[in-house]
Amino acid sequence: MARKANKNANIKDVAALAGVSIATVSRFLNGNLGRMSKTTADKVQDAITKLKYVPNSVARQMITQSSKLIAVMVANVDDYFSTELFKGISSILESQGYIGVLLDANADIEREKTLLRAIGSRGFDGLILQSFSNPQTVREILHQQMPVVSVDREMDACPWPQVITDNYEAAKAATTYFEKQGYQHVVVVTSELALSRTRQERFRGIQAAADNVDVLEVSETSYNHSDVHQRLTQLIAKSDQKTVVFALKERWLLEFFPNLIVSGLIDNQDVTATGFADTDFIRRMEPKLTLITQNPFLMGASSAELMLRQLAGEQVAPDKMIIPAKLQ
Amino acid sequence: MARKANKNANIKDVAALAGVSIATVSRFLNGNLGRMSKTTADKVQDAITKLKYVPNSVARQMITQSSKLIAVMVANVDDYFSTELFKGISSILESQGYIGVLLDANADIEREKTLLRAIGSRGFDGLILQSFSNPQTVREILHQQMPVVSVDREMDACPWPQVITDNYEAAKAATTYFEKQGYQHVVVVTSELALSRTRQERFRGIQAAADNVDVLEVSETSYNHSDVHQRLTQLIAKSDQKTVVFALKERWLLEFFPNLIVSGLIDNQDVTATGFADTDFIRRMEPKLTLITQNPFLMGASSAELMLRQLAGEQVAPDKMIIPAKLQ
Repeated sequence: MARKANKNANIKDVAALAGVSIATVSRFLNGNLGRMSKTTADKVQDAITKLKYVPNSVARQMITQSSKLIAVMVANVDDYFSTELFKGISSILESQGYIGVLLDANADIEREKTLLRAIGSRGFDGLILQSFSNPQTVREILHQQMPVVSVDREMDACPWPQVITDNYEAAKAATTYFEKQGYQHVVVVTSELALSRTRQERFRGIQAAADNVDVLEVSETSYNHSDVHQRLTQLIAKSDQKTVVFALKERWLLEFFPNLIVSGLIDNQDVTATGFADTDFIRRMEPKLTLITQNPFLMGASSAELMLRQLAGEQVAPDKMIIPAKLQ
Repeated sequence: MARKANKNANIKDVAALAGVSIATVSRFLNGNLGRMSKTTADKVQDAITKLKYVPNSVARQMITQSSKLIAVMVANVDDYFSTELFKGISSILESQGYIGVLLDANADIEREKTLLRAIGSRGFDGLILQSFSNPQTVREILHQQMPVVSVDREMDACPWPQVITDNYEAAKAATTYFEKQGYQHVVVVTSELALSRTRQERFRGIQAAADNVDVLEVSETSYNHSDVHQRLTQLIAKSDQKTVVFALKERWLLEFFPNLIVSGLIDNQDVTATGFADTDFIRRMEPKLTLITQNPFLMGASSAELMLRQLAGEQVAPDKMIIPAKLQ
């Protein structure tokens, strides 16, 4: 598109008119407003507007080799977990003048590859990735060296630092807690186990702590609500032990928990429910449940910190940072 | 960061090794894979990997003045409405080789301004905006000419095309529908009315169709759940007419509807509930409600089409495109 730049105005003119240093204008242009007073920022903005100054960002990018943009690829922007991750990332990046922009894999590994290809050729300064692909594929597709941090999805032989939850331990600890309350029978509600390592880890954690485990797999893309509700009801009734319904994904709690309440099944006496839950919706309903909270905001913030250290030139070891989940 | 480019490999080498045209490699690099077979894409990817070819995207950007990136600023990425908007936008942009990247205003007008400043200086090709700020402010902060489309928030004296829902008509039509079913008393549950024109339009629509209207304003940032539940219960009992609880925001339905069911209040006889709802959660609960659906995915897709027409050089009039909401 045409850019109607005022050829006569440059950064020096802006600084002079605003009565500030060139460095201040530069920080302003980079969105690095952390230590800048509102008065100063307004002065610079006014000078830019008056002079119709257009920073030649692309030329600047050629010189500094930095766009100050960090690509954040999430698994599915419809999941609260992914958006909280992004909010945590953005909050930290922005404190250092970087901007996090979100790209959505939309739970589609082929789409993720297309976006990775675009990220590799668009001059981003770094990539924070909640990935479906393995690290080898990611590296091949990016086809250039850039700082990468992996978050949430645990990866083997990963050349980048990772920020993860210990899903196995969290599920095992929760199951043990409910066993101690007398809930010996566990009904697991999950999306397809085979498709996600996270789910598998959680399921293994439950199996490590309980003997009487039933599983109901629900396909995320196609299922009949009343059918699932009915099968769930049957599974709960199957054992004469006290039952805890354990959702490996909050979505299934949100979908099926209200009807289980209405049908009088969940009473926190013979039957209770738990699961991984990031939002507050389930917590606000009656009867109150004890749930597992990861901390996606903190996971995001931690991965942004690892990114900033790399951007500052530090060699960061490809270690796994574990953000513990809490039962509450 | 260092970019270890292979100085000897260029786009011609890639094309030769892959046995395709330079135009094909170029389309691949721009992520424009719409009409490319998977075999061809794989061949190009292999050649790039073998030659360790790094496209000099920044230099290319200087020549074409195009990053193929469209900034999508949403009001709050935690809202399903905003993420569906983004999914609709992305689906259309990508069919033409553009990539939509999401920036999150986080329901904060000052933060929105900071991000707009960054967008203006980062070489984006265009901006699709679900805005808190008025058009004059947006234009001033961007301080450069770029194609803009406004979506969802209706703006006056707007220099760009807008894609909106007719909130007034949708609320009025729904209220009329419930009046005809005998629900003469309306209890409106809303966030602060003064803060959002959208809410005001919806409220005006309800007032235009009903005489007996009570309002419960709940602050999004601070409220006590049981307190709100109690006030809601009192308002429902206040009139001896049949009551419809009308949520101007889905969040309030999600928060308070389950407890209203459990306490036996909502029976679809004397008391029912409705509201603007974009997700499926509420629809799956019992008793079934009749709700208002906007179509954020279609609104996003439509705004992306208006963006593409501008990017193709067309002068698009600053008209309002209305995507009707449905009662279902």
